[in-house]
Amino acid sequence: MTRVGEHLRDLQLRMAELADLGHLSALAHWDQQTKMPHGGGAARAESLATLERISHDLFTADETGRLLEGAERETATAEPDSDEACLVRLVRRDWDKARRVPTELAAELAHAASTGQEAWVIARATSDSATFAPALERNFELVRRYVECHLGHDGYECAYDVMLDDYEPRMRTKTVAALFSELTGTLVPLLSRLTGEGSVPDDALLFAEAPVERQRELVADAISMMGFTPETWRMDDTVHPFATRIGDGDVRITTRWDETYFPMGLYGAMHECGHGLYEAGVDPRLARSPLGSGESLGVHESQSRMWENMVGRGRPFCAVLAPLVARRLGGALASVQPDELHRAVNRVKPSFIRVEADEATYSLHIVLRFELEQRLVDGSLAIKDLPEAWNQRFYELFGLEVQNDAEGVLQDVHWSAGLIGYFPTYALGNLIAGQLWECVHAAVPDLDDQLAAGQLSSLREWLRENIHRHGSKFTTDELLQRAGAGPISVAPVTRHLKDKLGSVYELDTSA
Amino acid sequence: MTRVGEHLRDLQLRMAELADLGHLSALAHWDQQTKMPHGGGAARAESLATLERISHDLFTADETGRLLEGAERETATAEPDSDEACLVRLVRRDWDKARRVPTELAAELAHAASTGQEAWVIARATSDSATFAPALERNFELVRRYVECHLGHDGYECAYDVMLDDYEPRMRTKTVAALFSELTGTLVPLLSRLTGEGSVPDDALLFAEAPVERQRELVADAISMMGFTPETWRMDDTVHPFATRIGDGDVRITTRWDETYFPMGLYGAMHECGHGLYEAGVDPRLARSPLGSGESLGVHESQSRMWENMVGRGRPFCAVLAPLVARRLGGALASVQPDELHRAVNRVKPSFIRVEADEATYSLHIVLRFELEQRLVDGSLAIKDLPEAWNQRFYELFGLEVQNDAEGVLQDVHWSAGLIGYFPTYALGNLIAGQLWECVHAAVPDLDDQLAAGQLSSLREWLRENIHRHGSKFTTDELLQRAGAGPISVAPVTRHLKDKLGSVYELDTSA
Repeated sequence: MTRVGEHLRDLQLRMAELADLGHLSALAHWDQQTKMPHGGGAARAESLATLERISHDLFTADETGRLLEGAERETATAEPDSDEACLVRLVRRDWDKARRVPTELAAELAHAASTGQEAWVIARATSDSATFAPALERNFELVRRYVECHLGHDGYECAYDVMLDDYEPRMRTKTVAALFSELTGTLVPLLSRLTGEGSVPDDALLFAEAPVERQRELVADAISMMGFTPETWRMDDTVHPFATRIGDGDVRITTRWDETYFPMGLYGAMHECGHGLYEAGVDPRLARSPLGSGESLGVHESQSRMWENMVGRGRPFCAVLAPLVARRLGGALASVQPDELHRAVNRVKPSFIRVEADEATYSLHIVLRFELEQRLVDGSLAIKDLPEAWNQRFYELFGLEVQNDAEGVLQDVHWSAGLIGYFPTYALGNLIAGQLWECVHAAVPDLDDQLAAGQLSSLREWLRENIHRHGSKFTTDELLQRAGAGPISVAPVTRHLKDKLGSVYELDTSA
Repeated sequence: MTRVGEHLRDLQLRMAELADLGHLSALAHWDQQTKMPHGGGAARAESLATLERISHDLFTADETGRLLEGAERETATAEPDSDEACLVRLVRRDWDKARRVPTELAAELAHAASTGQEAWVIARATSDSATFAPALERNFELVRRYVECHLGHDGYECAYDVMLDDYEPRMRTKTVAALFSELTGTLVPLLSRLTGEGSVPDDALLFAEAPVERQRELVADAISMMGFTPETWRMDDTVHPFATRIGDGDVRITTRWDETYFPMGLYGAMHECGHGLYEAGVDPRLARSPLGSGESLGVHESQSRMWENMVGRGRPFCAVLAPLVARRLGGALASVQPDELHRAVNRVKPSFIRVEADEATYSLHIVLRFELEQRLVDGSLAIKDLPEAWNQRFYELFGLEVQNDAEGVLQDVHWSAGLIGYFPTYALGNLIAGQLWECVHAAVPDLDDQLAAGQLSSLREWLRENIHRHGSKFTTDELLQRAGAGPISVAPVTRHLKDKLGSVYELDTSA
């Protein structure tokens, strides 16, 4: 037990206040995406900018630095894994980085992100990329100013390194590029073998008519098995699904619905519930501190994609899901069988929308964004040329011609909402999910039997014990090592895909 | 046009930042009462306390005082009615008052209010006043500390004056007591005449089965006629209905439903929509300033109760409402006639729940609370004795025995949520509504014909022009004078009640 010194205690108090302000920011963002009338957009942007200004000033104040230095002395001999030592390390890293950003720029970034979010909603509804171009110009202009604050520090080697680091701490562009290159090197040949030689599954049943109210019941069944409970969670509809923790005991997920494609609502909700379990599983001791939320977005995405794809689209859990789908949705789905469902939801088919992509082509959507983003950040691609660049590269990667921007460059909210450098974490999440999936199977040998019986608690508890409870105490590499995995690697997820898709497509993919 | 000086401009900026923080506070309160999972209550209370601490510090800072003094000099020769002069006057008053309150006490009040709100939800659901007694003790203890900060200033003559002033600026306890005494002196004999000699209307139709989904359609019709538009408004369900403006272009109302008593949802929504129209009607020029919201709660309540009772329960608009009720609710209500509806919704009947009370007995509910509140604030009534005191006085006023606390002392959220001194504004609102109702009829002679034809715009625009657009620029007395009414008085509302109830009960009440 570390004795808490005076500076550390005051630092903890200040961080708790900042966490309280983060609570309000999370709520304002959640509200903007789920409830706020459109007319409230301008006022919301002002509010979020003011909140950011106040938070940034409080965090970057000289006084915070003084407390931090004192706390560093007080924890010099503390256990490196103690909450106190981890807190001080994290605050030091964040403080040094935040000090390089002028308060006005931080506030402008928050304002532009909120404004861009509203511009995107309109642009997407009308599939008119011209109406959101000014918001995008503004976001990337601010990003370039933000990058300038940081280049030359922390070993960043390029502009994109700076952005990536905000979502995936310590990760570098060249590492991502190498991982993605290895990943596509495996995926592209696999995809062409599947479509060329495999037995293509029939997925017509996924497009059966299914009223939203019935889908809601199905989703409620699935997520309550996962651990959703109305006492501490809620779920709402939105345009672009997300999960967020407002504060301790208050986790919120969102999804969207398609009356003739029930997997959108079901797998979207399981995905977000996976994120939510991470946030809900952080040790309550870490609440009201910067340690109290998930570590890198890659680790976060590993949780959502594991629950969505490895559980939700895996053969074992389809034994539970198929009867549920049959009972809740009825109609053309009234007698759907587990094998039939399993084959249908694992059909590989190049498509326009990232969040609806199958598990194998998904990462190609990320590669596209990763490439374009780097050029937007370093200025070699102009916003006005973005839609055309998107469509051209999309055709090269997927062989499909984008017909309108809503199914092209306008499909994602990220760039409009100022989330630049965020996309790679989705594919990194796939890799990490593959690694952790092998770890949990090693730790729980009969896991597949449990999943087939609808028992999800061993998986959830293993994840809580090995990942969730630590919050942001450890880096991604440290977390993976503690969980029994090596550094981020490509092989596990490709093994998983080859196994599953080989079985679905009746092909020997072991080579 | 006032030339904006340097201090004034900086003061305006600071007030805009405070309005932004107010936006977040309003959102957090709205969310707590409509969306937040119960488990999030403790974190929400911490967040609101931190937000209050920061807002209070920013507002009461010496620097704000310096800007204020400078702005006073700069506006010394400004038109007294100009936005600038009004702003400086309002800030001076609020600043002097806020400076007397230590930041920690302000934060504790916010924390206790949020915690008490959650305690009340549980206590009310279980009708167990013991579970919310500690929260109530805490709130009144803090109130007594708050009162101590202010007694001896601003001409307060008693502890209750201090509390009342927060909701009804410049109003004094003795004035309220005199108005209430005159009001009950008219109401009580009127009530006994109605029940003794009158022809009691049949209100059985109000209790017809009406599915909530159909009631929602009815309410949507009614409030959209009033001016509700989804572009800048939203409506949600809650336990205790309220209206709030989050920010410019974002007004939110709430209601609740009873499947066998449709007036709860309908009139509740019209009431809250009346509040919302006030907030939505403030001149956008006043947004992001303390002038940008309604003046005293009495004026606010005059708006809600005018729309609910004088429009919604008035004979002219019943000509529109009855066919709507018939079409939307159907069933036993499929052929309800305007006269029949008008008589039913104006039946006078002592009842337990304030918000469901008829227009005539309503103010007696307020008298009860006003009396008890004074004793709770000055300490002559202990929390533990409150339920019994409530029940005893309730019997004296209404002749009814309270059977459980949910229909007694637990029915209202106010005391639990720290809103102490708030209740009288409801009855003051009735008085002001009576006064303004006479003014608008004088200004728009054919108003009743318009209402009967479903044309609500003349009323709404008169209110916007004379009341809403001014925000908090003027005091209640000034507002009433500008609108053509005198100081707050009892006669107009009692004239209105005698007219309407005389007609419904077929009695000559002109004496």
